[in-house]
Amino acid sequence: MARDPKLSLIPLGGLGEIGKNMMVVRYGENLLIIDSGLMFPEEEMLGIDIVIPDITYLLENKDMVRGIVLTHGHEDHIGALPYVLRQLNVPVYGTKLTLGLLQGKLREQNLINDVVLNMVKVRETISIGPFKVEFIRVSHSIPDAVAIAIHTPIGTVVHTGDFKIDQTPVDGEITDFYRFAQLGEKGVLVLLSDSTNVERPGYTESERRVGFAFDETFRTVTGRIIVASFASNVHRLQQVISNAYKYGRKVAVVGRSMVNVVNVASELGYLHIPEGTLIELDEAKTLAPEQVAILTTGSQGEPMSALTRMASSDHRQVEILPGDTIVISATPIPGNEKLVSRIIDQLFKKGAHVIYETFSGIHASGHPSQEELKLMINLIRPKFFVPVHGEYRMLIKHAELARDMGIPSDRIFVAENGQVLDFTRKSGRVAGRVTAGKVLVDGLGVGDVGNIVLRDRKQLSQDGILIVVVTINRENGLVVAGPDIVSRGFVYVRESEALMDDAKYRVKCALDKCFERNITEWAAIKSHVRDALVKFLYERTRRRPMILPIIMEV
Amino acid sequence: MARDPKLSLIPLGGLGEIGKNMMVVRYGENLLIIDSGLMFPEEEMLGIDIVIPDITYLLENKDMVRGIVLTHGHEDHIGALPYVLRQLNVPVYGTKLTLGLLQGKLREQNLINDVVLNMVKVRETISIGPFKVEFIRVSHSIPDAVAIAIHTPIGTVVHTGDFKIDQTPVDGEITDFYRFAQLGEKGVLVLLSDSTNVERPGYTESERRVGFAFDETFRTVTGRIIVASFASNVHRLQQVISNAYKYGRKVAVVGRSMVNVVNVASELGYLHIPEGTLIELDEAKTLAPEQVAILTTGSQGEPMSALTRMASSDHRQVEILPGDTIVISATPIPGNEKLVSRIIDQLFKKGAHVIYETFSGIHASGHPSQEELKLMINLIRPKFFVPVHGEYRMLIKHAELARDMGIPSDRIFVAENGQVLDFTRKSGRVAGRVTAGKVLVDGLGVGDVGNIVLRDRKQLSQDGILIVVVTINRENGLVVAGPDIVSRGFVYVRESEALMDDAKYRVKCALDKCFERNITEWAAIKSHVRDALVKFLYERTRRRPMILPIIMEV
Repeated sequence: MARDPKLSLIPLGGLGEIGKNMMVVRYGENLLIIDSGLMFPEEEMLGIDIVIPDITYLLENKDMVRGIVLTHGHEDHIGALPYVLRQLNVPVYGTKLTLGLLQGKLREQNLINDVVLNMVKVRETISIGPFKVEFIRVSHSIPDAVAIAIHTPIGTVVHTGDFKIDQTPVDGEITDFYRFAQLGEKGVLVLLSDSTNVERPGYTESERRVGFAFDETFRTVTGRIIVASFASNVHRLQQVISNAYKYGRKVAVVGRSMVNVVNVASELGYLHIPEGTLIELDEAKTLAPEQVAILTTGSQGEPMSALTRMASSDHRQVEILPGDTIVISATPIPGNEKLVSRIIDQLFKKGAHVIYETFSGIHASGHPSQEELKLMINLIRPKFFVPVHGEYRMLIKHAELARDMGIPSDRIFVAENGQVLDFTRKSGRVAGRVTAGKVLVDGLGVGDVGNIVLRDRKQLSQDGILIVVVTINRENGLVVAGPDIVSRGFVYVRESEALMDDAKYRVKCALDKCFERNITEWAAIKSHVRDALVKFLYERTRRRPMILPIIMEV
Repeated sequence: MARDPKLSLIPLGGLGEIGKNMMVVRYGENLLIIDSGLMFPEEEMLGIDIVIPDITYLLENKDMVRGIVLTHGHEDHIGALPYVLRQLNVPVYGTKLTLGLLQGKLREQNLINDVVLNMVKVRETISIGPFKVEFIRVSHSIPDAVAIAIHTPIGTVVHTGDFKIDQTPVDGEITDFYRFAQLGEKGVLVLLSDSTNVERPGYTESERRVGFAFDETFRTVTGRIIVASFASNVHRLQQVISNAYKYGRKVAVVGRSMVNVVNVASELGYLHIPEGTLIELDEAKTLAPEQVAILTTGSQGEPMSALTRMASSDHRQVEILPGDTIVISATPIPGNEKLVSRIIDQLFKKGAHVIYETFSGIHASGHPSQEELKLMINLIRPKFFVPVHGEYRMLIKHAELARDMGIPSDRIFVAENGQVLDFTRKSGRVAGRVTAGKVLVDGLGVGDVGNIVLRDRKQLSQDGILIVVVTINRENGLVVAGPDIVSRGFVYVRESEALMDDAKYRVKCALDKCFERNITEWAAIKSHVRDALVKFLYERTRRRPMILPIIMEV
């Protein structure tokens, strides 16, 4: 019998980080991609809009890529697709809502006609190259989320996607315990499981609990109710709309992505809106406050979002009034805590009442806590275990949790993006490394902002810039105009004329010295000017602005 | 009988924010200042080192200022003193450790000989102008913390400072319940109380609980133990040192502020170090791992701190090794969450074991939760209540809590920095406003970085800068050199030569057009060049770098 080709798992994103999830499954000369997500920039990625995975490895093996399967419609799972599909035109597979949300994106990017989208159903198994791919229902903070089982000749890989074990999901679509258990019973080679919430003991609260909190709010509040949430959390939107209807309020939807999701999800049947419940903002203004609910974006304090603009009196249509109740139905994503606190403070200052997470059950996570992770491991009982979707410490904790449950340490792989994990029926090992990393998107530029540009932005942001211009006669080396000094972001110029005059004097001295010593190389002159200024300015201000000498020649 | 002068409370810092605490008590022509703290800069205060209160009001009334009383030695209560004392030389009053820590600061700033420091004891009452000032023991995350009672002819003001109600403090120094209760029984006009933790239900854990967690760690861990904590938390340091001693480890102290606090606190008798327990790092290297503990700064992931440098292999003396256990004995201050997570990830990657707050009792807050706040209100039973030390939403919550306990709404004041609250024996009201605000310190510059500079830094940080230089003949207006374009932080220049060439061409066209139309004003020429480039670059890159045209004349 010929030796089987080996099975490899190659994470290109989502390991050691939250976001830009992308996992490649390789069997022989065939690649299957699970998800293509984006990540929001880290604080030090100044000016960057989004971050996407480096897909060099896929482009180098273009002919082997058989398709992309999607677990669900969140940005960190589908957000990089417009970039990936432009370079790699392969069929995409996903459930109805996932593809519905993706279509909007592709339409915006004029890609809709170039891409083949294949709708799949749960419990369906389809063939993609040599892979038999099966989609399995899980609960998550967006409907139509699935785990993916990939059957290959040497074994089955189960990738949970993002999930939680919600025993009472809002749409009644329970995690497919039977199918997971059945796969486990038959034998699974590798389990890849979501590590986002591994630091939390116990169980994640059911989404339905949020409904109870909404019910309480809608039952008791007399003024307007404004609910901010993630647009993609359709179950959450449903609970707002259902409670508004129950207590006789009309709902106005504000914020581009919120309007978009409400349209797509209701069109596709994932959001049930009683007739006459949705109204335009204009109509809302004609109703009494107790008849109005507003559903809006901005739960993360995003600077351009609707709620942020309302809080800073900057929204064209909605003004926050005393008596309004604002429900921030989300937890701040790490890094956004301060933004969110600021919005809450501003809303309180306007006399509104604000309900936010610290106080009440108006949010539930979409990811599994420790007991749910254990249940998943016990259902699947995999031979090998690879924690995915999480910062490094979370992967470590998830690995420890699996080990404590009896999976031997040498069958657990805490991997990094770009590492290649090779599996046979019986063994697994780290087998090498491919290119992987972060591609920064800034405006229209994909990957044109690298470390040098970021380092410059960092320096500019801390102490600004000082530009010295001097025009020199190329014949005799004499200064014919300048030196002029212009600064930005350094000191407030009008109050620092003396400092600037002294700086100019230092530049003149440096130029004189160059002339005396017959130094004529521009680079050398610039470096003398720079050194003189750096020293002078640090002594006088303890700051280190960027110094940029420019020499013109006439 | 002549009418009594009125009593005013004028917050200059700490209201609507966490940090730069400063409260002014005015009685007739006399001002008493409680604390002079600093604040760490908000994210958008690019390049700023620290923020201090605007003391214009104090400088305008210099002759009335009778003194500064300190509640404790944390930076957000004493950190602005070097700046304040330079402009306002008045006597300072504080407990032993508070003054000990302040002395170090003043020595650094060469102010030590100019300032009169008066040491006070708890339960002591001293006269400062017309004020009888009493210092009352409270628990906090630093020893020797006090609340302050100020007795005036029209009534008593109690300011809690920062506190918690620790029933089992490490040093045995219990909050002075008797004195608080006695003041309450006699009648207190106004209570000012710490709002930092008002969002937390229940009680704050005792500092002693942290000791149990340390005991468990020191008893079971076999490798080196490295504990990162706030340097000023002397009780925490004590518990590390005591446990190290108990389990036969020597302690090396790393990080400038940690070394400083250990020295001051042990000299003054607040830190008890068994003989031979402290060692130098060099000696630590000669011992077996299980004999070593290291006490270090960096619990907030501060970029220059010892732990951060260890985590990134950048510390000259300490290298993190597999087998090390690192205890991060602190909670990330809001805004530092990401920095701290990154350190934890880096430490795990080095094979260390990391114990951090999410998992265990290795940190306790220094501020009171709701039940403690209620106890303070019930002890004091004040006529008027003013929540202090907190963001606006916290002040609101604290006001609600006081109202729920029976203090009438019209006797509770949620104030802002700069508002003047006037009190008589029977009434209280918002009576006006004085100058208050944030003064930004950047290097040696105090207040020279304002909104314009920050706005420039913001723009520079997002998309960089593009400088266009052109030299023009002043006689005929013809271009004799340039235009040259230099950019920083915009795009990686080598990969964007074509873009830069096109940009140069646009500048030339704009200059030609100016020449044709006989536009000779520099400002007008610059504005044409800027407009042409802004439009061109936005179309091509969707970025908006700062455009800085410079014209030289020969």
